[in-house]
This record gives sequence, structure tokens and C-alpha cells, in this order.
Amino acid sequence: MKAYLAGPDVFLPHAVAHAAAKIAICARYGIIGRAPVGDEIGDLSGLTADAAWRAIYQKDIAMMGDCDIIIANLTPFRGASADAGTLVELGWFLGRGKPVFGYSNTAALFGARSRAQVAKMPDPVNGLMIEDFGLPDNLMIAGATSYPEGLGVIVPPDGTDRAFDALDIFEICVAQATQVKSKSV
Amino acid sequence: MKAYLAGPDVFLPHAVAHAAAKIAICARYGIIGRAPVGDEIGDLSGLTADAAWRAIYQKDIAMMGDCDIIIANLTPFRGASADAGTLVELGWFLGRGKPVFGYSNTAALFGARSRAQVAKMPDPVNGLMIEDFGLPDNLMIAGATSYPEGLGVIVPPDGTDRAFDALDIFEICVAQATQVKSKSV
Repeated sequence: MKAYLAGPDVFLPHAVAHAAAKIAICARYGIIGRAPVGDEIGDLSGLTADAAWRAIYQKDIAMMGDCDIIIANLTPFRGASADAGTLVELGWFLGRGKPVFGYSNTAALFGARSRAQVAKMPDPVNGLMIEDFGLPDNLMIAGATSYPEGLGVIVPPDGTDRAFDALDIFEICVAQATQVKSKSV
Repeated sequence: MKAYLAGPDVFLPHAVAHAAAKIAICARYGIIGRAPVGDEIGDLSGLTADAAWRAIYQKDIAMMGDCDIIIANLTPFRGASADAGTLVELGWFLGRGKPVFGYSNTAALFGARSRAQVAKMPDPVNGLMIEDFGLPDNLMIAGATSYPEGLGVIVPPDGTDRAFDALDIFEICVAQATQVKSKSV
């Protein structure tokens, strides 16, 4: 089984080594991990910005098509919610009917994070509702990781935030993917 | 043709009236608009938070399944990028191979918005890359709205931000959807 390893991890300064660490964890659970960085994307030097993003997009989509499941890093990224590109990819797997797994290294819930964001960077109009169902992020993310048989977004079980690039919650998520896969994939 | 009208519009204090205005614009272009608010979701009073979000999720997914295309409001929402739920839905349509259209009422590009976000709410680790391809948002959003034959995220053509709930850029997007639909849907 191949897992697409989505996340803002691609923006880390040590993105290639970090992806290798994730792929090694997957291997210990019998899963082939693939991440959209390094050799998977290839050399983009010499390309214009327009050609570069199109090349990355097309390689990402092809890699997603080659994978059976997604394991998404849904740790909040530059705002109240998870990374935008990761969410498009998560939705893509959901649309394809492929199993969706996700985790967050942040324990604070979406409602609290939304209020913190608005306190620092006010909404453009007054009275915009704050979604607060006691979930780790927007309900579409909770649903995508819960149906048909997932456990929702995996968060730190002890309620303590992990470092942005910590991998212990990711490993819990990989273990979960292994169990579900044995039933349904 | 039915269009799923996604966006953080559902959080507006006047969400039901706003959805009706969008649906009326769609009707002028021969498109049946559906928005996940009001009667489409129904009465959730009396439900627990857990039951409520699950009901909304399942109704949203059913509505998406009934629609041919998505027209997504990708105006930045509580962070550098578009609304999280909207992005999951956009990815879902992409995964299903259904045409994806999107617009933003904000003219500033993703790179500048990411830098503004980080200035107010610093990244959790040093050296996280800022994606800056001169696009309105993350490249996965640009790609989803550009392939196979879209025009990318529709932004204010005069470079001037619109109000969060303005509908003139939405109307340009609806008109675009009409043209593409005549070719491919």
C-alpha cells in the first residue's frame, strides 16, 4: 500500500531529510510512503515561476493518483486551519473514495485558534461566525478523516502541543492507517 | 447544470440572504446554484455539537454529489489562504473530475499575504519557506482551477480588493463557468 504524505512539511528547511524520516516510519509499518519533495519533484532550476508551479502541480497529481491513501499533516499553518495545498489534496482523496488519514501536532481546538487568529488579524466584516464544534479544525476536515471508518484528526493524546516537525503523532496516524487498511483497502 | 456554491459565506451574519443573492445570479446565467446553508441544511437545534457537525457534513457531501461543478469563494479567511472547508470541497470536485471554478475578492497575492500573516503571527519554526509563484493562493488551488481548461482563480481585474461579501467577482466566475460548461460538461 502506498501513502501520499501531504503536509506543509515541504516548506521545512530540512524538507528532504524530514520526508525521508516519514518514509522510514511508514516502512516500519509496511507502508510505502511518498512525499512531494526532492527527487519526486526533480530539478526546477531554470524554469520560470509559472512553469515551476505547473510542474509541481502535475507531479503532485500524478503521485496522488499512484497512492492508495493519504496521510496528511493537518497541523495549523499560517492561519487558523491546516495548510491550503494539503486540504485540496485531502479533498481529492476523499473525492476519489480513497482512505483519508490526518494528524495535527497542535492540541488547541479550532474554535480557540480561530479566536486567536481574529484577535491578531481581525475579520474583514463584523459578525462572521466562529465555527466551534469542539473539533481540531473545520468540520469538513473532521468528516473527511472520520467517514466511512476513520477516527478523525489524530491530535496529541496528552493535550500537549508537539514541535511543528515532530513525528510521534504522525506515527500514531500511520499505525491507524495500517489497521484500517487491513479491513478495507 | 447544478453548481455547488462553496465558501466562508456560510459564516456571514446574513448567510441565507447572501446565498439567495448568489443563487439569483447563477439563475441569470442558466445555472442552478446550491449553497450549504438555511433550508439545505435544516434545523439543527436540539442536536449536540457532535451530532450537528456530522449532520452538516453528510448534507454537504450529499449536495456536492448532486452538483456538476463547484464555484468556490476563495477569498482569504482567517489566515493566508482560503477557507479550510471550502478547500476540502474544491479538492473533492477535483478528485471526482468535476469542473472547479473559484474566485477571490482579494487582489493581494499569496506570497504577500503569507508574509503579512507571519509578521503578525510568527511561524513555529525558523526558515519555513514562503511559497511565492505570483499566484493568488497555494499552487494546488491554482492548479485545481486551471486544469484541464480553467482560467485559474478569478481575482479583481482592476487590482482593487472588494468587500468580503461583494458579488461582482463571483459573477465573473459564474460567467466563466457557463462558457466552459458549454464545451465540456
